[in-house]
Parts: sequence; structure tokens; C-alpha cells
Amino acid sequence: MSAGDLHTLVGKSVPRIDGIEKVTGAARFTGDLVIPDMLDAKVVRSPYPHALIESIDVSEAMRLPGVGAILTRDDLQDINPYYGNCLRDRPLLALDRVRFVGEPVAAAAAIDKTIAEEAASLVKIRYRELASLSTVGEAMAEGAPVLHEKIFGAGEHHEMESVKAGRRKNICHEEHLERGEVGKGFAESDEVFEEVYEFPMVCHSSMEPHTAIASVDRYGITLWSSSAHPFLVRAELAQMFGFPLSKVRVVVPYVGGAFGGKSYFKIEPLVVALARKAGRPVRLIQSGSESMLTNRRHSARCRIKTGVKRDGTLVAREAELFLDTGAYADNGPRVASRAVTRLLGPYHIRHYRINVSAVYTNTVPAGSMRSIGGPQSIWAVESHMDVIAERLGLDPLEFRLNNLLRRGEELKPGGRPIDADLAQGLEKAASMVDWRRRSRAPGRGLGLALGLTDSEAMPVSTAIVRLLADGSILLNAGTTEVGQGARTVLSQIVAEELYVPIERVTMHGTDTLVTPFDRSTGASRSTTVMGTAVRAAAIDLRKQLTEAAAEILKVSSDRIVCRDGELIAGEKRLDYGKAVRTFFGMSGGELIGRGYVRPGGALDSALPVFWETGMGAADIEVDSETGEIRLKTYATVADVGLAINPQQCESQDEGAALMGIGHTLFESLHYDSGQPINPNLIDYHVPTVADIPDNFESALIENRDGPGPYGIKGMGESGVVSVAPAVANALAQATGARIRELPLTPERVWRALKRARPGSFDTAPAKPARNEPTEDHP
Amino acid sequence: MSAGDLHTLVGKSVPRIDGIEKVTGAARFTGDLVIPDMLDAKVVRSPYPHALIESIDVSEAMRLPGVGAILTRDDLQDINPYYGNCLRDRPLLALDRVRFVGEPVAAAAAIDKTIAEEAASLVKIRYRELASLSTVGEAMAEGAPVLHEKIFGAGEHHEMESVKAGRRKNICHEEHLERGEVGKGFAESDEVFEEVYEFPMVCHSSMEPHTAIASVDRYGITLWSSSAHPFLVRAELAQMFGFPLSKVRVVVPYVGGAFGGKSYFKIEPLVVALARKAGRPVRLIQSGSESMLTNRRHSARCRIKTGVKRDGTLVAREAELFLDTGAYADNGPRVASRAVTRLLGPYHIRHYRINVSAVYTNTVPAGSMRSIGGPQSIWAVESHMDVIAERLGLDPLEFRLNNLLRRGEELKPGGRPIDADLAQGLEKAASMVDWRRRSRAPGRGLGLALGLTDSEAMPVSTAIVRLLADGSILLNAGTTEVGQGARTVLSQIVAEELYVPIERVTMHGTDTLVTPFDRSTGASRSTTVMGTAVRAAAIDLRKQLTEAAAEILKVSSDRIVCRDGELIAGEKRLDYGKAVRTFFGMSGGELIGRGYVRPGGALDSALPVFWETGMGAADIEVDSETGEIRLKTYATVADVGLAINPQQCESQDEGAALMGIGHTLFESLHYDSGQPINPNLIDYHVPTVADIPDNFESALIENRDGPGPYGIKGMGESGVVSVAPAVANALAQATGARIRELPLTPERVWRALKRARPGSFDTAPAKPARNEPTEDHP
Repeated sequence: MSAGDLHTLVGKSVPRIDGIEKVTGAARFTGDLVIPDMLDAKVVRSPYPHALIESIDVSEAMRLPGVGAILTRDDLQDINPYYGNCLRDRPLLALDRVRFVGEPVAAAAAIDKTIAEEAASLVKIRYRELASLSTVGEAMAEGAPVLHEKIFGAGEHHEMESVKAGRRKNICHEEHLERGEVGKGFAESDEVFEEVYEFPMVCHSSMEPHTAIASVDRYGITLWSSSAHPFLVRAELAQMFGFPLSKVRVVVPYVGGAFGGKSYFKIEPLVVALARKAGRPVRLIQSGSESMLTNRRHSARCRIKTGVKRDGTLVAREAELFLDTGAYADNGPRVASRAVTRLLGPYHIRHYRINVSAVYTNTVPAGSMRSIGGPQSIWAVESHMDVIAERLGLDPLEFRLNNLLRRGEELKPGGRPIDADLAQGLEKAASMVDWRRRSRAPGRGLGLALGLTDSEAMPVSTAIVRLLADGSILLNAGTTEVGQGARTVLSQIVAEELYVPIERVTMHGTDTLVTPFDRSTGASRSTTVMGTAVRAAAIDLRKQLTEAAAEILKVSSDRIVCRDGELIAGEKRLDYGKAVRTFFGMSGGELIGRGYVRPGGALDSALPVFWETGMGAADIEVDSETGEIRLKTYATVADVGLAINPQQCESQDEGAALMGIGHTLFESLHYDSGQPINPNLIDYHVPTVADIPDNFESALIENRDGPGPYGIKGMGESGVVSVAPAVANALAQATGARIRELPLTPERVWRALKRARPGSFDTAPAKPARNEPTEDHP
Repeated sequence: MSAGDLHTLVGKSVPRIDGIEKVTGAARFTGDLVIPDMLDAKVVRSPYPHALIESIDVSEAMRLPGVGAILTRDDLQDINPYYGNCLRDRPLLALDRVRFVGEPVAAAAAIDKTIAEEAASLVKIRYRELASLSTVGEAMAEGAPVLHEKIFGAGEHHEMESVKAGRRKNICHEEHLERGEVGKGFAESDEVFEEVYEFPMVCHSSMEPHTAIASVDRYGITLWSSSAHPFLVRAELAQMFGFPLSKVRVVVPYVGGAFGGKSYFKIEPLVVALARKAGRPVRLIQSGSESMLTNRRHSARCRIKTGVKRDGTLVAREAELFLDTGAYADNGPRVASRAVTRLLGPYHIRHYRINVSAVYTNTVPAGSMRSIGGPQSIWAVESHMDVIAERLGLDPLEFRLNNLLRRGEELKPGGRPIDADLAQGLEKAASMVDWRRRSRAPGRGLGLALGLTDSEAMPVSTAIVRLLADGSILLNAGTTEVGQGARTVLSQIVAEELYVPIERVTMHGTDTLVTPFDRSTGASRSTTVMGTAVRAAAIDLRKQLTEAAAEILKVSSDRIVCRDGELIAGEKRLDYGKAVRTFFGMSGGELIGRGYVRPGGALDSALPVFWETGMGAADIEVDSETGEIRLKTYATVADVGLAINPQQCESQDEGAALMGIGHTLFESLHYDSGQPINPNLIDYHVPTVADIPDNFESALIENRDGPGPYGIKGMGESGVVSVAPAVANALAQATGARIRELPLTPERVWRALKRARPGSFDTAPAKPARNEPTEDHP
């Protein structure tokens, strides 16, 4: 039975409700807004990776006609300038020293952007340069300078799981997970494999750069922002600037891509402080390059060691992952805590010891990015699995299937048992590249990978659904539409529960003044968690509507059914609008439904709320002359429980896979002596339409086994995790070259091909030295 | 026991929550907003009172650089151009003919206001003038041209009481009320008095003229407006332009005075049509003069005839009121229907026959204005009462007291019984001018009057109250803050019910996209009706909060009390913010309370929802040389049931009385041959601070006998009704001169003094001829 048999709208690929608005340019983003008397801002950024600020002179800048205000550290005396979602380690402007190239040191607001830029250029700052830490290795070396001497806890933002903080040797955060006896496990193993994998710094590259407009007066703060987390921004600004939550208004219209880069707090505290100084609204629209110097994904080095029986049974694992979290913690602690389980893979392993460290360096702060901690860890785990399979002479698919966790089994003690049929998904992905044919043309290879991630979807959302007097419906839910299609899917849920066409439902943007609380848009949580709140609100509304109709039609409410916008009791019919009007005795009135989700409430209380699963399979062709990899087929499979909108699910999953293709083949933000080399979209290559695989296929696994409405679960991130290992595994199968560092650029592949013995695998070094690169760096 | 003994905030004159914001200029009104790409508009208005439009040529105007669009009747083909809250008799632009000087015929939108004005001046319109109807007399004469040949019913806007329409002899609407046998009543009377009173056209003179900004696209309409009735505007625009309610967004920030002049629909349909044509947002800020040509109070002529026993017992009344409703119905039918009961006074009269007609003329449309139909009818009734008392040799106070309706008695069959102690209020007003001293200095006189009005407060409101995770509270209620202090009073109710300081509560402006339905701001209804919805929402919230605390504290919810923002159960205490955070298991979350008011719901179901009562007493001094009247003391008394904020109630009542002083002494919009003579604030005199009475006193009657929360009832309009008769009665007492036409300008008083025999009353003519003026016109 398909979803369509049970539901009228759920399971249907209705067109995006914001599609036409966006393709015609009618949709408004933050940068499209005009606030009366608004000034434009330009940020003065540090040119040094690490330096003391000796003096700041704004006198010349202030003399420029048209300048409204220059914000410096001197303007932050009366507020708490520190912010941070895990640790409050970051001031909104550098105070005594700068810690990365691009860090804001001052900001100018002027009547137009050109004057603001000129004013910014006239701010004179004297620095005293300090030794800088470009890499995790440097940061952890004995005698390295300490980047943060004191850090404030994030207090209330320690949400639901404590984040352990330790700054020994610039370690921002450490996370540890252990089970069984690892030493004994390795001793019992027939073979032990140990490798090191490296993952580059990559950027979110959203089409819309970070943008915010702030207005501050004695009554509070109003902020229009491209933020994906308006309610968390509200709380942070309230804490910093000393207002109650009710006096901080955060408005988020459409957002042009987020991918984690607009999570938590980015430019908002700075823009608010500047507007406060200026006494007028201030707008900051960053350039794409500035946004690349605002946040990025953690680069990583992973040492992974696995003991196996000769038959391929996994016995023990030890893994150590170092995440380069950059100059400030941002979401590093949470990325570290999420990466831990990802390093286990979705496999039975009796003995394990996992350690993940987020380490401060003098680089751009790293934070959330699609599947936090996932690509870095799964890149290592799933490459490693193929290396083991090859050494043991096992088929990589069979090897994985034999070790996979089954439904109901636990990945780690006390967590939600596995709620998916992982084997089904992996078989599906394999079948999509015709895995079992095994006939390889020269230069062609197949590769597989899968990932299981706990996205840490927080089970807290609220929603309001209002039925107006003509039967039209307004949905007020705080999910940010970042391009993922949330408004469409949430509207589908409302329309489903109220038995109306989707055109009847309008969902608008977030305005914390009037939109009820949602924890955040991210962690693949919106359809599952907010969807549950929205559904509860719609059901609450339907109940009131049915009771109103019972009163009007003079029948018992349990005799009334809803269908096609009508309330029906036998021969009696009443359309919704008429029911509202009659209930209120006039042409107006409305009914208000509300829904809450909280731990232990409407959703199953086990955490994580759901496991997010993604499988990938690659069929590649390698050009042995140039080292270029061409994806002939890439298949991505997501276990979604049930797809409310299959087309949107597929788009999400393919979008995630394409992002994965980016870090697999092209993307890397390079540093040289603390200076970023390529923070622009000319020198930093994101995939274009030319880079899409010849056959780009996606499939959804739908077993209605998720915790959300109708059996759904979160998706949209997992497509990113399997691409790199699947492609590297295919490359190894095709050429024998095993590459352990991304991206798989033509140069890197070409060099590896030169080193590999043609026709055989480049076997893993048994125990590579800890920090030794596994092949040449570009 | 005072209110303060029972309540913590109700009954306290807390400062206005929007006070500082307004006096510092921080408050934003519609005209302060800037919408991206916005054009400015200028309306082309008819110079003729009545004419056919032969042609409109916009070609030259369109050639002017910077012009975005010129709207004419040709642009209205695909919509329903007619609007109206009682009758849909008005097109948003004149179609075939114009019906008053100032009627919009075209509108220009351009990149700035200067260009828009020039473009408007270049629109060439050829008119063919028609005979015009300047007065009700002309409009009802045999052979008069018919102003409206066809009128569409207002359909859904026929709210709760049908409005009977008849256009015979340009009669827009007639309302009739009859009881007993009037002929028999007059026959049984010892004396019969008949007089004619006239009331001028007066203007609202709000500080903020009508202003609106509209944006229209395929997705719907967004309108920012100075409207007092955003939800009715939404419904009207949806009907005219063919959108569902959910696609019409009406945003109302602060409004700078309304007084009925911003009720229902004024410039909004025109601005929306112009924005639709322009394809860009369009702003129209009218001048003060334009707003005077947009709406006004009905001028009136009232013939009143009363039969009395020699002891002063009222026996029979016949009254006929003709209201000049101008060129379009606007709220004329409702004004007529409300005036009917006002002509009975709050007195026992066994036999009566009342007829009220709203008549079309070629003048500015008349609509709602503070106490609709009240000043016109009570001017006649309460002057007439003094004339009768004088003739019968009775004290005007005793005469009134002897005939007053008592609590629980009916004014008209089937309506709400009198819910006030009218005698108490009248005695109070009399005592404030030391009525019983009766010693008169030369040129000094005392006068009394009172009015009982059914404001037709519609009992339909909804509200949302949200408790945030730090214990701060957001109130989302659709009452428009027009200067009356609604946000303060409604916030007091929330704070009272939730046991928090008022600073914890924030109430914001209306945005129909997110603000739940309220019928309207007017009819003195907001504190009583919306207050009931707000209180219900707060109680609903408190219930959820208590249940959450019961779960957290592990006690029964009936053991929990709320006090000072805390939930207390014995020794256990939990502040509200902590309760929310614990309930949701994180630093966020919120609880959402909702409240509804509907007929038969939380408010007593009898209509009117309440009787609004106002008493006035004047002590005046007349300068016999100049005819100037000086108010030595004016005392205004309102029966408010209970004052939630006594200072605001007094301000409201004094503001209403000052508005009454305007039409009593100064105000009149004059027409000459269909041309308005003084539509500007130079030639049209509104009271200034210099015109405030030497002693300006107000008192509130508080018997907790209203239907609203804590026993409140509506107020704020009734102060306007008693001023004119009280002053005219004092003038007659002081000088013997009885004037039956307002305003009591020095010239008119001087002429009356010349005619009156010094030292005695100018007794009423026994039966003045129907349309004969009772004294010289200025």
C-alpha cells in the first residue's frame, strides 16, 4: 500500500509552494529589505592570523562625511561582548587580540556602502604580531601559545547534553566513548588495520551570504537576519544586550541557503552592537568572500584502527579524530560529540575506544555544516572498511552486510535502537550501480559507502495553525525556509490533517515577536519535530472545528467527519468558513490550533529522535592521463521512513550528494602561514552543473518506521557522507590507488596512479606514523 | 473596598506603556515606513459636487519622467470596484460620475511626491456638471436628481443586525422605532413641546491623516495602513480583489488618532488598486485637508416633540432625525440605527415613535465618529428637556431624575436592561458644578445633560498570550492602538491574571498575517470585548503553566498558586521562566494561551454588550459684549463599571469632552453651492489648549456592574455627547437665550442675546414650522 492510499496529500510530490515566487525573483531575502534611515556597514577585518591590538584610531574615518558610527572594542564596556552557542569564547569584535585573518576588529556604518568601505579603510589599527597556529599539529605542540586563556560557559545553552570543556594544549573540547576492552579486542583479532585519513576545510558556499539588519533602541532590538536559528539568536542577543526575550525581535524572511553556515550566531551580535552605537538601523551584507571567512566545516585528521576476524567479523576499534575548530569554538564541541558515534559506523563492534578532539587554531572558526562531523568520520570509516575487505579478500558489500547493525540493536548503550533496515538501503544503493555484475571496463570502478548519523534533532517545537472565516488557513511555525522546502512539507501536513487542498494553507516567515518557539532549523529535524508540532496544532484545530460544527448542526461531534473542506454529518454539510462565521455570529472570527513537542511528549522519548541513514554507490571512470575522475553513475539512497514529498526528498538527497561531490573532487580552503589562499569562488571550486554525474540517481527507503508524523524521519543531510568514501573505494577498485586525503583532485589522483602498481590495490600501510601524510600534498 | 484591594494591577493608573516611545518620537506610524521600491501617490479629485465624467486623458501625465502609473476607471474592469461596509455603493474611483468635491477620479504614482503631484495636475478630465444637492432638504425635494440608481448589498458585512435599505428620494437608510400609541400619548399629555435642532458637519481632525502603503502581486496583497479596522479591511480587499483572507495582509502600526474617521474602508481600496497597476508598492499620505474631504460626522436636523404631564412625567415622544450622510453610505445606515435609541434619552417614555433617515447629498461622505449618532440626537433631546423643565417650572436635575430609567429597566423591548445607576452619575456631575447652590453671578449659568448610548460593540474577539522561556510575555491581540491606551489596559489584564509586573508584558501592533481576529477597534468595545478575550487567553495560559508546574514539582495542580511570577506549592517555588524551560527540557520553549469571545460565550449574551453612559455639567460665563462663552467649569462623568486604569479613563473622558467642546463652540465644515469652504485647520477651528475649561474635571462611576472583566464596561465616547446641551442649557439659564443650532459661536450667541429679553428665558416656540431656522445663521 503506498502512502497515497492512506493519505490525500502526504506522499505526493506537490510543487513547492515558494517555487514561482523564487524563480520570478519576487521572493524577498534579508538583503532586499529597506528599513527607514538604515545605514550600510563595512567590517574592518584582521589581516593577521594572530596579533595583539595595540591601538585603534578612528579619528580620520569619523571625519569622512556620511559616516554614522565606527564601532570598536571601546563601545562594548556596558554589555557582555562574548557569545557562543557551546562556549562563550568569542567577543563580537576582537578585544585585546585577533585570532584569525578576517576577524572583525572594527565596523563602520555610513549612509551608503561605498562610504562605509572608505571609512573602514581609514580606521588605523596597530597590531603586534604573535606566533600563529596554522594546524592542529602546531596547536597541540609543546610550547604552543594558548589561544584562549579564559572562556565563559554557555550556561543556558548547554542544551540537554553537557559539553565538556578542556583547553589543555588548545583543545577546545574532547569527547570520548568507550565500550568493552579494546586491548583485549585487538589481541583477539586475526588482523589489525590502522590508517590515517585527512579531510579538508570546506565552505558552505550558500548563494546568499550572511546578511543582517539591526535596529536598537531603549525598547529593545529588532533584527532582520539570514539566520537559520532565529530563536537561539533572540536568546543570545537578549543575554548579551540585557533585554528580556520579549523585547528582542528576530525576523527571518526567505534564506538563500544555510547548510549549517547560518546556524547559531554569526554576524548578528556585531550588527546589533553597531546599530546600537549608530542610533540608527544598520545593514551588513557580507560578500561571498567575507562569508567564507565567517564559518566553514571542520577539517580533520582521523587515525582509525580496527581488529577483525579472518571471516570479516569486526572485533575492536580505536579511533582518534582531531577536528580543526579554528579560532573560536562556535559549534565545535557539538561537532565533536556527534562525530563520536559516526566513527563506529553502523556496525557491530564489541570493543571500542573513540576519542574526538576539537582543537583551536588561528584559522576561520568552524561550525555546523550538513551532517556535522559526518563526512570527516565516515570518510575514514568507510574507506577503511574497503581496505579491510580488500585485504581479507571479501566483497565490500557482503563484508558490510555481515557486520551491519540490525533494526532494534543498539549502536551505543542507552541510545535509541536502530530504527531502520540498513541492509535494505545498502542493497538498494548497490543495485543502482549494478554492483553484482562486477565486470569492470578499464579505468572503471564501483564503490560503496554508508553512514548512520545522530543529527541531534532537539525535540522542542511549537506551532500555531489558524482557520480564517473563509476557510483559508495560516500556519505560523518557526522553521526557517532555507531552500529545503519546509514550508511546502509543513503545509502538506496541515492540509492533510484538515482535509483541504494545499492551496488553502499559507505558511509565512519567522518573526519571533509573533511566531511561536522552535529550537532551530537544522539537524534534519524540521519535518519530524516541527512536523509533529504542526500536526498536533492542526489536530487541535480540527477538534475545535468539529465541536463548533456539532453545536451548529446540532449533532454529536463524533458523528462529524471532515472531507474536502467540509464538515459532514449524514445529510448535513457545512463548509469550514461557514462554520467559523456561524460560530462567531458574523463575517469574521477564527479558530486557533496550537501544538507542542517536548521531550517525552508527542514524539517517542528515546534520543536521538531518529537515526539518519544515507548510502551511496559510485561508478566512476578515471582518466589515467590526467587523473580526472568522472562520475558515470552516482546513486544516493536515504531511509526517510515515509516521504511526505518524494520529489523534495530526492532533491534534498541529491543536493547533499552534490555537496559531497564538492569536497570529494574539488573543494579545499587552503592556508599558507595563517593566510587563507583561496577564499573566493574563483579559486575555490564548488561543483557546477557540469560536475553532476552522468547518471545521478536517488532512491528513498520508506518503511514508515520513523518517529514523526506518518512514520517519517529526518533526511537531507545523509547524502553528503558517503560520496567521498564511495568514490575513493571505486578509484581503488579501478586503479589500485588508495588515496586517504581529500579532495581527489586530478593532480592528487595522477600522483597516486603513478605510485600505485597498475592493476593492483595500493594497500594500506600497516601502521603509518601518526602525523605522516599518506601521500603527497598538492 | 477599592479595586486595589481585590486586584494588584487592575484599578491602578500605571503609566502608558507607549508613552515614552511616543513623546520621544520613536514610535512608528504608517507614514514612517519605507517599503523597498515604493512609489508615492497623489489623488486627482473632483472639483465639482456632481458631474458626469466625459473623458480622462492621462497621456501627458504619463510622459512625465518618474511616473510609475496613473490609475483611472479603465483599470478596474477585472475587479469589483465597489466597496462599503453597510452598502457597496462606492467605487474606489469615480466611474461614470462624481458625487462630491474631493472625490478621487484618478491617482498618480511616481518616484517622489512632487512628481506625483505634477502628474496628477496633468491628468485631463472633462466633466459635464449636474445639478447638485447641498442639503438634505434639496436631496429630499420632489424632482431632485437621484444620486444612486443601483446599490449592491454589503452581503457578509450585514453583521448581526440587518440594515434596511431604501433609496426613495435619496434616502440611504431609514430606521424606525415605535412603542405604544403616540397619538394617544400626546392627547393624554398636559403640555406638548415641539422644536427643531440642528447639528453641524464636523471633522475628526486626527493628528495623523489617512495613510496607506500597498503592495500587490500574484500572491496577494500587503497593506500597511492607519486603519482602525484591519480585519474588516482585509475582508473587503479580499472580496474586491479576489484573494482568500490568508493572502491579504494588513499591518497596522501605531495610529495617530482615529475617532471613527479610520473605521471601515477609506483610502485602502484605492491605494491597493494603484499599487496593483504600478506593479510596485505605493504609498499615499493624505494631507490634513484631504482627510477632511475623506470623512466627517453626519450633520443633522432633528424635530423633537414631547408630551408631558404637569408634574413633569414624560408621556409621549415623536422624533424625526435627518442625517446628512453625504455622497456615499459609509457607515450612515449604522449611525441611523444607533441614533434611534439615543433619541429616547435614558428616560421612561410610554409612547414613542422615532424615525431616523440617512440622506445622500453631494457632500463628503459621513461615517463613524465618536459616539455615532450620539451628539446629534442628545443635543436635541437634552436641550429639549431643559426647555420643558423651564416651561413647567421644574428644576432640570429633578425633572431628569424623576424620569430616569432605573437599573434593570428596559429602554426598548428585548434589549439589555439598563446596567447602570444613571441617577448616581447625574447627581455626581451636578455636584461637581455645585448645582444646588443655584446662586448665579451675572452672565454665569449652569447646565446639565446626560446620554445613554448603545455603541453596538460586537462581541467577537480572539487573542493569543505567549509566555516565553525567561518569563516575559507577548500579547498578540488585534486591537489597534489609536491613542486610546488599549495596549496599556490589555497588558494590565494579562499582568493581573498572570501575577506579574506589567513590564513583563509586551503588546505589539496588528498584522493580520499573525494576529488573531478582532472585529474592530471602536464602539468603546476593546477593553470590554477584547479584554475578555485577552483575559481568557491569560487564564488558559495560567492553567497550562500550573499543570506544567504540577508535573515539575510533582504536586497536584490545585495546590499551586501563582504569585509575583512564581508558582508556589507550600515550600516549593518555581519561577515562570524556569517552569517553561523545565517543561521543554531546554533553554527555550513557550506556552501559548488563546481566548475567544463570541455571542453567547464569555460575555453576557444580551445586546448591546453594555450601555455607555456619560453625564456633563457646565458652569459658563458669557461675555455679553462679544457673545463669547467661557467654560469656567466643565465636569464630565462616565460610568465605567470599574476603571482598569483610572487615569486613562479620565483622559479618554476628558478628551471626548474636549471634542464635544469643539462642536459646541467652534467647529463646522461649511459648504457653499456644493463647495466646501473651510476644509483646513486654519479656517476650521478645533479646540486648542487655550480652549480647555478653567476647571476641567472628570469623575468615574464604578459599581462593577459591567459585563467585562472585573465588572468593566465600555467608555471613552460618552464624554462627547453632553457638552453641547449642557452648555446651551447653561447659556439659557445665564441669559435667557435658547440656541438650537451649533456651534455656539460668539456671533450666534451675540445675535441670540440681542433677541432674548434680558433676564428671562427665550422660551421655546410652541410649534416652530418644520424647516424654519430657529435663529439667524451666521
